[in-house]
Amino acid sequence: MSDIPGRPPESSGPDRELATPIPERAPAGSGALPDERVESPGVIAPSFMARFDEALEENDIVFLRSAVTELHPADAADLLEHLSPDAFWKALHLLDGDLPAEALTELSDDSRRTALEALSEEGLAGIIETLDSDDASFILNDLDDERRSRILARVSASDRAAIESSLAFDEESAGRLMQRDFVAAPVFWSVGQTIDHMRSVDPDDLPDTFFEIYIVDPAFRLQGVVSVSRLLRSPREAALKDLMKDASVSIRPEMDQEEVAFLFQQYNLASAPVVDEAGRLTGMITIDDMVDVIQMENREDLLALSGVSEAGANQTVMSAVRARAPWLAINLVTAFCASLVVGLFHASIEKIVALAILMPVVAGLCGNAGSQALAVTVRAIADRDLEGPLVVRAIRREALTAICNGLIIASLAAFGSWVWFQDPLLSLVIGAAMVFTFLWAGLVGILAPLVLKTFGADPAVASSVFVLTSIDLMGFFVFLGLASIVLL
Amino acid sequence: MSDIPGRPPESSGPDRELATPIPERAPAGSGALPDERVESPGVIAPSFMARFDEALEENDIVFLRSAVTELHPADAADLLEHLSPDAFWKALHLLDGDLPAEALTELSDDSRRTALEALSEEGLAGIIETLDSDDASFILNDLDDERRSRILARVSASDRAAIESSLAFDEESAGRLMQRDFVAAPVFWSVGQTIDHMRSVDPDDLPDTFFEIYIVDPAFRLQGVVSVSRLLRSPREAALKDLMKDASVSIRPEMDQEEVAFLFQQYNLASAPVVDEAGRLTGMITIDDMVDVIQMENREDLLALSGVSEAGANQTVMSAVRARAPWLAINLVTAFCASLVVGLFHASIEKIVALAILMPVVAGLCGNAGSQALAVTVRAIADRDLEGPLVVRAIRREALTAICNGLIIASLAAFGSWVWFQDPLLSLVIGAAMVFTFLWAGLVGILAPLVLKTFGADPAVASSVFVLTSIDLMGFFVFLGLASIVLL
Repeated sequence: MSDIPGRPPESSGPDRELATPIPERAPAGSGALPDERVESPGVIAPSFMARFDEALEENDIVFLRSAVTELHPADAADLLEHLSPDAFWKALHLLDGDLPAEALTELSDDSRRTALEALSEEGLAGIIETLDSDDASFILNDLDDERRSRILARVSASDRAAIESSLAFDEESAGRLMQRDFVAAPVFWSVGQTIDHMRSVDPDDLPDTFFEIYIVDPAFRLQGVVSVSRLLRSPREAALKDLMKDASVSIRPEMDQEEVAFLFQQYNLASAPVVDEAGRLTGMITIDDMVDVIQMENREDLLALSGVSEAGANQTVMSAVRARAPWLAINLVTAFCASLVVGLFHASIEKIVALAILMPVVAGLCGNAGSQALAVTVRAIADRDLEGPLVVRAIRREALTAICNGLIIASLAAFGSWVWFQDPLLSLVIGAAMVFTFLWAGLVGILAPLVLKTFGADPAVASSVFVLTSIDLMGFFVFLGLASIVLL
Repeated sequence: MSDIPGRPPESSGPDRELATPIPERAPAGSGALPDERVESPGVIAPSFMARFDEALEENDIVFLRSAVTELHPADAADLLEHLSPDAFWKALHLLDGDLPAEALTELSDDSRRTALEALSEEGLAGIIETLDSDDASFILNDLDDERRSRILARVSASDRAAIESSLAFDEESAGRLMQRDFVAAPVFWSVGQTIDHMRSVDPDDLPDTFFEIYIVDPAFRLQGVVSVSRLLRSPREAALKDLMKDASVSIRPEMDQEEVAFLFQQYNLASAPVVDEAGRLTGMITIDDMVDVIQMENREDLLALSGVSEAGANQTVMSAVRARAPWLAINLVTAFCASLVVGLFHASIEKIVALAILMPVVAGLCGNAGSQALAVTVRAIADRDLEGPLVVRAIRREALTAICNGLIIASLAAFGSWVWFQDPLLSLVIGAAMVFTFLWAGLVGILAPLVLKTFGADPAVASSVFVLTSIDLMGFFVFLGLASIVLL
């Protein structure tokens, strides 16, 4: 709660400063403008970074504490992540329990795990206690069992129970994501009764933000939903049961988070109730958690298509090597398979070196066409655009697109090779091989992820290496094989 | 508004049916269970699809109309997109003004454009009039100027003015995305006055859903924000100015939508006010629009990295060819450059065919390492994780990761080539060439998108082709060059 701020005169700064985040709490008595600390959202001003570094060196705990508490938690997390690894550890160690709980949840995966090691058990218990149960279980999930139980022993019994029941659900399930604080009202209440109840109840028992109120019967079974904006607009005497709508989706605690995220997108939800098997209301999921899930799933797809299993701003070299080397090793095996195919035709290559020279054109172009089909398919699967009759239509489109692009690109390649080698037969060979391999690339690009999906595997992971290798194999085989027949 | 539904007994169906979307309006008197029509969210039941197809053939407009209005607009859009192109056109033509406006906005880009051609001007004007100005301008944006003004001439003057002022902003700006319906209250009002006002005002003048109320001074300059949940919890006599907080971000109508989306993610916003240069409140942006933007930007990055400029469930072959052929054509030029490099060493290849045979290993592996670095970098740029001191740290990490992975993979490749060709010098050549090219791949993979970003270009677009080509060029040059020196 703040008084009306003396709004500083609008400056007409450069475009990127259009968005100056304003800290939730104005710095106590400092009068500092927010842009002194945050240049643009997510970008800490270098001068403030330097001051923070200095304070850290001088163990100026008062400055450190005020810096991280006055910034928005997301910006505080960014500030800490910009520190060198040693400074990060020291800052966390000094701040300990004074670290704002929300800043801890905003850290990237790698930094959060480091932070958990730097914080004391007492400090962590204090942080855990201020968090909603979904965030608390998110944090505790990274700890080993022993440390986790020692920390849980320090928090209040009711918080512990909520956190433990959250941890009982699978890691990427709705049960983990939902918060146990929500507003429920009996079906026979009026608008006035509901508002009066909310005014009288301890604010700690209500969620910070909520967009809808859940209407339940005496057995706590969900009967309907009233949006907060509707509640506000309705007369005091209106009955909740006349205002309520059916929940637009029904989410169970066991549901996978990716499924939940899809529901939020498909039906434009801001929040949704979670009900158990018996129809009893057990929690609420809000859109901000879903935005994080959506981003994470998108990131995973993008990285997986390039053979990276994990990445982050503060990833260590060891962790980056672990996240990438396995795919490279698999690719090494598949690349040697491509070499074996080339090796089959070593006699032809010995006689016509032009074949070796043109190999990169065949492999490169057809590989690119395959990547295109693969990316389009992975995206369509994620958007659930490949269902029912759309599958057949998409396969036909990929095939026709491959043939069209194949004809265009193969003619150009054939022309290029004619200019270079003046050998019409060689041009014919490369052209025909490319049209055929383009078609192969288009079909493998769409079929491989669809088949993987049918077998329950993630279509983004693994598709890439195998699709590209099969295209290399086919491209080399057709090009060199055709050349051996036609040219020798 | 519905009565309390007689909840059917919970069935313990298969997992995928955990999420049964419940239509907002129960089908009038049909008693049909929702799962008869929608198998799982976004997936229309084949039996319902077949019935719809049949009704379309029989011109059963009553059935068509009830089908699209009773489904959630997102599901209605999915239903229409599952039709064949001819049937889609016919359905739109028959439905015309009866098509639910929200279903039109939920269609994919390609389908929406087709729909706009199938709908009459009268029908479109009716649809436009029921939409918020942001959605209306989104739809009208696809039309040519003449048709757009003929349709605008049919809508009410006030709607026309709102839509025209929305269209005056750039296509991907906050001004386009914001809605002009929001709830503002003078700074001197109490909670009770605010609630009474909302109860008395015409519901059409309020947004359907809102999460916060904006507090303004007499000149309509934004003074603060009160969340609806806070308003509900506060006593009637409380003054708005004591409850309000500063807006957590300041968004201008000119701001790019990607920037706005980042703010929503960074600060976990559900909605945000848009203020003009003079600080006057001009609109409101809500999270559901931002989720669409986030998804779109993610999709663009994923597709761009594979050289696809556009894709969609109902994309035509022509449009798919147009979206992919240009990148293939560029790749053709760059692939011939790689061939030129190989050509430089044709004499060496003639003597040692093993070089041609091993070329795919060098190019494939180093290309993969480059893709990995590129994907990690593009993602980090999108997350604003590459700012200030993090840039130098990330470059160092990529270099060290490349050297580690290079040493691992190159030793394995050298071993493989020794097993095959029993030539220690050849193994040495391929190993050394690969370590060097891995380092090159890692550095180009991170530096190319960073440089593109510095020059204001989209780091995802264009990076891929150039990064991979530069790696091919370097890999062939070093491998074949080193071989020519060492082995000949």
